[in-house]
Parts: sequence; structure tokens; C-alpha cells
Amino acid sequence: MNSVFHRILQWSVVVLLAVFLPVAPGWAQDLLPSWNDGLAKKTIVEFVGKVTKEGGPDFVSPGERVAVFDNDGTLWSEKPVYFQLLFAIDRVKSLAPKHPEWKDQQPFKASIENDLEALSATGEEGLIKILKVSHAGMTTTEFEKIVKDWITTAKHPRFNRLYTDLVYQPMLELLSYLRNNGFKTFIVSGGGIEFMRPWVQEVYGIPPEQVVGSSIKTRFELRDGEPVLVRLPEVDFITDKEGKPIGIHKFIGRRPVAAFGNSDGDLQMLQWTAAGNGPRFMLLIHHTDAEREWAYDRKSKIGRLDQALDEAKKRGWTLVDMKRDWRRVFPFEK
Amino acid sequence: MNSVFHRILQWSVVVLLAVFLPVAPGWAQDLLPSWNDGLAKKTIVEFVGKVTKEGGPDFVSPGERVAVFDNDGTLWSEKPVYFQLLFAIDRVKSLAPKHPEWKDQQPFKASIENDLEALSATGEEGLIKILKVSHAGMTTTEFEKIVKDWITTAKHPRFNRLYTDLVYQPMLELLSYLRNNGFKTFIVSGGGIEFMRPWVQEVYGIPPEQVVGSSIKTRFELRDGEPVLVRLPEVDFITDKEGKPIGIHKFIGRRPVAAFGNSDGDLQMLQWTAAGNGPRFMLLIHHTDAEREWAYDRKSKIGRLDQALDEAKKRGWTLVDMKRDWRRVFPFEK
Repeated sequence: MNSVFHRILQWSVVVLLAVFLPVAPGWAQDLLPSWNDGLAKKTIVEFVGKVTKEGGPDFVSPGERVAVFDNDGTLWSEKPVYFQLLFAIDRVKSLAPKHPEWKDQQPFKASIENDLEALSATGEEGLIKILKVSHAGMTTTEFEKIVKDWITTAKHPRFNRLYTDLVYQPMLELLSYLRNNGFKTFIVSGGGIEFMRPWVQEVYGIPPEQVVGSSIKTRFELRDGEPVLVRLPEVDFITDKEGKPIGIHKFIGRRPVAAFGNSDGDLQMLQWTAAGNGPRFMLLIHHTDAEREWAYDRKSKIGRLDQALDEAKKRGWTLVDMKRDWRRVFPFEK
Repeated sequence: MNSVFHRILQWSVVVLLAVFLPVAPGWAQDLLPSWNDGLAKKTIVEFVGKVTKEGGPDFVSPGERVAVFDNDGTLWSEKPVYFQLLFAIDRVKSLAPKHPEWKDQQPFKASIENDLEALSATGEEGLIKILKVSHAGMTTTEFEKIVKDWITTAKHPRFNRLYTDLVYQPMLELLSYLRNNGFKTFIVSGGGIEFMRPWVQEVYGIPPEQVVGSSIKTRFELRDGEPVLVRLPEVDFITDKEGKPIGIHKFIGRRPVAAFGNSDGDLQMLQWTAAGNGPRFMLLIHHTDAEREWAYDRKSKIGRLDQALDEAKKRGWTLVDMKRDWRRVFPFEK
């Protein structure tokens, strides 16, 4: 029975922590060590404090504590371009030996030559061609393996590190902090849902079923009696801008009480969250740190923050100034 | 501090139960009191026992313990027709005063006159017309209210009870039993996702974000600055037959280890579940009890069980004979 008592002892500690941590503001703030003391951190802690205060006027029951996070530029970096595009380019390169004709055809030529500018010049049409050859034609199981292989080996051009090293330490702390306070954390990204699912559990602690993202269509087939899902070169739905509240409603079926983003693509998600009854929390990350990360906003092609920045100021949404508010950006920093 | 000790004491009991119940087979079977002792109950308990046995050869980690349940005919009844169709008919009736022309137009005339046979004769085209006027044109918030009003007042024609009274007691016990053993329970139904979400938490203990179902498209709009989602008369996706594994992959993103259904519409979901690695559990409910519920299978228009019945027998999937295996069918029975 000795091990049973140990187990009870261990659990008692867990229970004690779960019971007392949320009501101890000093302790709570220590759970966000990579956030500098300031307005952003203060409003986060105050919001969590009031919605978890049983019997308080702003109490939100645990089931309704839904928090949604954009991914690119909110949980990890998105420069020089969305990492999923770099994945697609790498995929084109690895398929190129079987397609000798690609070396003279755009957008493949630009991909093989790592020429982001020339690739960009091929426009949306070029992009779609790249996405089709890199993301469709295989089974879902095969695609999962391709993503896992890439995400555990490919390196970011500026930092020469795995892409999953370029996640924001303050946001990892925030995700844990919210979950410790009974929130269910979801990703709602314009990125591909199947591009994120193979690694988000390990990196963010978010399970695959709590990921909302853009999808392509699939077809069910029996191959020698074995069922497979084949990824088709046809867009199913893009969860960006208006697509974010639509995706939230379809996949989650509840309105979030907290939403976190960084660009105009997140505006409608924040508007949708803000329009619910009861306490709400809306936050935008402003990329202001060219030294530790990148600095961009109104003029950026990737992750443009313009209209949403104006609306955040007008409506009093929380703005994170990365340079000022984050003590540490990436986990690998000392 | 007295209340703190009480709290710890309460939690210790919960923890002790959580730790010991799953390994005590006698106790576990008592959690399924509406199941008669027999092969179906035995295989369920054995499956749960082996996948939760830490260190055992068939152990499945809690995150992977995904169980999917069809709704119509698996969690609640589906006769004389799918309850959602009866909802649509009731909706047509309540809209009829504003549409005097409907009393001479099919399929509305048949709906107003409660003539299921005449309605059925209008075929798929008629059905779609009914679904469009009853399910589209309003905001998602308005639709949720319409469903809640109906589900808490409308009565089933045979039993003269709320439709949510016609859920299967053995399946409610099974849902709890699985959740107590670390399973995450999902609904994967051909029925409308927004028709189920407003009441499944209360009735099945399944939260809205764990419901997969057929959907229509929505449009994001700002009305006087307030964002709304408007339900459009356009099908988004039908999660029936091949659509079930496709929907599972899209919404859940993991392959279930256990799948529960009752008709040919569930066959592909069971095939998809069966094709995964490691221990699997596939179960079909055979409606064999005309007295307490209904008896139907190969020839039924609603909930036909034909091809899936053959495959279940061939592959050794668990078959529930409702008459033989269920001590009690509905919660209201003594």
C-alpha cells in the first residue's frame, strides 16, 4: 500500500496547487516570467483572476473558458515568409529530381533556386501550384510523415534552428497559465490544419483535435481493402479573416472568451470574440523587435497589422509591444 | 483551514476511485447496470481493461483514447424518422402562417398536414426544400435558440415524451464508463452539427467542440458593427458514410480507437477505426426490440443495417442485440 500513499501524497500536492495558485496573484505572475511587468501582463492576470473567481460577477464556468490563438506571428515567427511556404518549397526541391521539367518552369524554378522574390512574382497562381504539388496527391498518413520529417530536421534561414525553436516563450507560458486556470486552448490559424497537427501537441501542449486551420478536400478509398484518405488538390476552406469566426463556429461551436492574434487576418476573430456576453479578452502582438525577432506592421506583406491595430486602439484591446513587453522572445535565448 | 482539509478529503476519494475503479473488473461491470451479462458487455469491459492497463501490451495513452459515436439510432432513437426531420417539419408548421401559399405547395403541404408518406414521396428534392427553410436564413445565435426551444418542448409521437428522453440508458452508461477510463467521447453523426450542439452536453455529457456533424455554410457579416454568422441555404459537408472518416480526420485529426454505430452509414467509420494500429473496438447496435423500441435492419429506409451487418459478422465486430443485451432501453423505464 506504500505506493498508494505516495500516489495520494503526490495528488494532494497537485490538488493543493490547483486550488490555491489561481487565487494567489503573486504566484500567478511568476508563471509568466518572460513577460515584463507592464500593462499587457497586468491585464492578462486581471482577466484570468476575475473569470476564475467563483461567485464573482465575472465568473466563467470552465467549459466556457475557450481561448483561441492564431499561430503564424502569434505563437511562432512568420518571417521571412510563413514557414509552411518554406516547407512547400523544400518539398518541391525534394520532388524535383522526378520532375526535370521544373527547372525551366515557374513557380518551380524559383522554388528550386530558393528565389523568394521570383516566387512571389508568380502571385497567387504560382503559390497555389506549389501548394498543390507539395500538399496533395498522397494519403493523410503519408502527409503526416512528410511534415514530421521536415519539422524535425529543416532549419530556419536566419537562426539556423528548427522552426519549432522559433516559438515565443512568453506565449508558451501564457498557454500553460491559461490551461492551469481551466481554459481550453485552441489554435485558429490560416495555416494548414494538417501541417500543424503533427507537432502542436509536443510544442504547444495543444492536442490535434483543438486545432482549427485551412484544409484541402480528401477522398475516402479502399486500397486492397484498407481504407485511406487521399489528399486532393482542391481547397476545402481557408480559415483566415472572415474564415476564422466561421471556422471557430464550425469546429468549436462555442464563442471564445479570449482571442490572441497579431495581424489583420485575426481581426474578425477578435471582433467575434469581443461581441459575446460577459468578460472578454482580446490581444494583439505588435512585432516591434527587429533585433531579437522582426519589426513590421502596416506595410508588411506577411502578417500585416494595420486595420486591426487601429481597431485595437479604438476599442481598448490589449496590445503587446514585443520589444517592451517580452523579457525573452525565444526559448533558446539565455 | 478546516474547509481546505475537507476539500483534500473529497479529492482523495475522487482520486482513489479514479485509481482503483478501472482495475477492479467487478466494480467496472457495475458501471454498466443496464447491460445484461453477455458477450457485448464482456468485450467492452475487456477492451477498456486492456487499453488502460499501464505497462500492458495493449496500453493506449489517454490522449489517444478517442471514441466516436454515431447519434441517430446509436445514442437516441431514429423512428419513425430522424428526429431532426421532425424538427424541420415543426419549423415549417410554425412558419406557415407567414407563407399562406405553402398549404397548396409540396413539400410544405405534406409537412403542415403531418403526412410523412406524402413528404417522403417528394424525395430528396422535397427534403432539401424543407431543410432550407427550416435551417437557413437566420443567424447562428437565432438558430441555437430555435433548437433549444424545440428540444425542450416538442414531444415524440409514439412515446409522448421529449425527444431527449429517447436516449439509450445503456449508451449513457457506456459514455460515462469510457470517460471515467480516460476516453474522450465524440459524436460523429450525419445529423446537423448545429442541431446537436445546443443539447448534447446536458444529455450525453459531450461538449459542443466534440461534435462532428453535417453542416451548411455560413457568412460573416457586420450588422450595425456587430458581427453575426448567417446560415446559408447551401450544404457545406455531409458527414455520412465516406463523410464520417473524412469528418473525423478534419475535426478530430486522430484515428479513433473505438467506434459505435448502428447502420450502413457507419460502416466507413468503423472500417477507418479498425484499420489503425493497436487495439481497436468496433460495435454495431442491432435494433431487435419492437416492443421497447423498434425492430429493423436490412429493409429499413431509416437506419438501414445490411452491408455493415455482414461485415461486422465477417470481421468479428461486436454486435449488440438490443432485445437480448439491454436490460433497460430508455432512462424513463422502471
